[in-house]
Amino acid sequence: MPRILTGIQSSGRPHLGNILGAIKPGIELSELPGNESFFFIADLHSLTSLKDGKLREEYVTAVAATWLAFGFDTKKNVFWRQSRVPEHTELAWYLNCFTPFPMLANATSFKDKSEKLADVNAGLFTYPVLQAADILLYNANVIPVGKDQKQHLEMSKDIANRFNQLAGEEILVLPEARIDEKLMTIPGTDGQKMSKSYHNYIDIFLPENELKKVIKKIVSDSTPLEEPKDPDSDITYQLYALLASPEDTAAMRDNYLRGGFGYGHAKQALLECILDTFAEPRRIYNYYIQNTGELEEILREGEVKARAIAGETISKVRLILGFGE
Amino acid sequence: MPRILTGIQSSGRPHLGNILGAIKPGIELSELPGNESFFFIADLHSLTSLKDGKLREEYVTAVAATWLAFGFDTKKNVFWRQSRVPEHTELAWYLNCFTPFPMLANATSFKDKSEKLADVNAGLFTYPVLQAADILLYNANVIPVGKDQKQHLEMSKDIANRFNQLAGEEILVLPEARIDEKLMTIPGTDGQKMSKSYHNYIDIFLPENELKKVIKKIVSDSTPLEEPKDPDSDITYQLYALLASPEDTAAMRDNYLRGGFGYGHAKQALLECILDTFAEPRRIYNYYIQNTGELEEILREGEVKARAIAGETISKVRLILGFGE
Repeated sequence: MPRILTGIQSSGRPHLGNILGAIKPGIELSELPGNESFFFIADLHSLTSLKDGKLREEYVTAVAATWLAFGFDTKKNVFWRQSRVPEHTELAWYLNCFTPFPMLANATSFKDKSEKLADVNAGLFTYPVLQAADILLYNANVIPVGKDQKQHLEMSKDIANRFNQLAGEEILVLPEARIDEKLMTIPGTDGQKMSKSYHNYIDIFLPENELKKVIKKIVSDSTPLEEPKDPDSDITYQLYALLASPEDTAAMRDNYLRGGFGYGHAKQALLECILDTFAEPRRIYNYYIQNTGELEEILREGEVKARAIAGETISKVRLILGFGE
Repeated sequence: MPRILTGIQSSGRPHLGNILGAIKPGIELSELPGNESFFFIADLHSLTSLKDGKLREEYVTAVAATWLAFGFDTKKNVFWRQSRVPEHTELAWYLNCFTPFPMLANATSFKDKSEKLADVNAGLFTYPVLQAADILLYNANVIPVGKDQKQHLEMSKDIANRFNQLAGEEILVLPEARIDEKLMTIPGTDGQKMSKSYHNYIDIFLPENELKKVIKKIVSDSTPLEEPKDPDSDITYQLYALLASPEDTAAMRDNYLRGGFGYGHAKQALLECILDTFAEPRRIYNYYIQNTGELEEILREGEVKARAIAGETISKVRLILGFGE
């Protein structure tokens, strides 16, 4: 049975781009018969960039609530908070000692930052090793990654190989990357890729009046209301097309091409479409935000399942390395 | 009350140089009224160089048995095995994220190895951070170190400061180095400093016949038996003088200066002196080597005491960083 593992970023509140590009596809993958998904909130990783503890707590809650809001089945799968399972950092230390310095120094993700080394902390430098630990603890065999993460997955395999060579047997399961070539890029309110760092994202869980303000900020050209407009070059249309039914999208397309239909109308339609499409997730999300105890409880259940497996792996590793069981 | 903390190397079996240079002084320090010593077997650190698990287990047992053989009081103090307290690696990860890459890259210990980077693993590169975690977990205020370790202690303070700045209060206690200027250098069988890496060490726990062979190998000059000899340039005499009473040492000196006394005689006297001086430690050492269950039990008791304190520190750190308690 394919065991799929994904570390979920938690250095921000999930936005529409994350939901369409990662969360919904991740949940769909977990629902395929025979699949078993290990999804964890990668809050240890977030410390490499985010130091504010209050924000971290807030983001972790928002991330967990979002996955639950979109129906992730935490009974069938395993869903936990990375920092609650100390085996992650323990295995990371062991694996550090099997990771040649040049492997990390030559990683593209590090080289990209090497002009401002003073801003790079040792956590950022060694995070591919923590990533290897995340994967190898759970004998995960399928790791869905974007192209930019392919090199890190090769490093995980290399590190696992070095350990297995010492052990003389395959204690650590070699993971396989599943590169998603057709990764959707969701446009942000300024037309660039929607991203937290560009401040161009749409938070679908905002109260209606705030959501409206965000949508009003979507960039458009200055074609007058009465004239026909090009739907394909307009961001509001693009976002609408991602969410609305084919029929509604076709009708919207006609509105654009016909003229007499302003961007303000399109934005109002997009707002209504978001509120309508995400009515149920918004309800569930807000429920968990107001009942964080229940959210905690769900994560604790996942933690128990995760620790049982992580504990088995770490025992084998400790035994090989002479740290007792 | 000064809380003294020392990580005990465990990448080899303790030899006479370790005993006279570190173990006996460490135990004496722990016995001073008001002192409280936290001594741990640094087996996580040993993984940066030693990969063989069987050897590690063997060395850890030998190290623990040696400290007990020389009378370290594990009831008054705290004595544990580092790898049994997962808070060490957990805090190390948090502190990694507060350690600028250049701080580690500029450490003398790393620069010394920078010509053969392929042999440096990420554990070796980041071990000053694990060291900082070792110290900071226990609010230790006095860290006895050799001069070569002074820079690492400054790094511990620097890292603790960065964390405390974020916290807005002194969560982590800043440690003070206690540089031992008058560190004894014990000569090995070849006259260089006694060291595992020079293969010139004397293992005082060897069975008598093996110990005799090692002592026979002590280098001497070729002055004939009947001629007077210079005690001060002879290694056997130097070792004898470190162990024997002032009276016996003076008598030995006379023997050297008088002539008619060969190096073979001196070596026999040294052998007898070692067997005599260390009769009780040899007995206790062998007892624990044959009763490793009892040794384990003692380390487990230390582990419980250590975890209670480490757990408090990690809870405070987690709370500040937004990882829950």
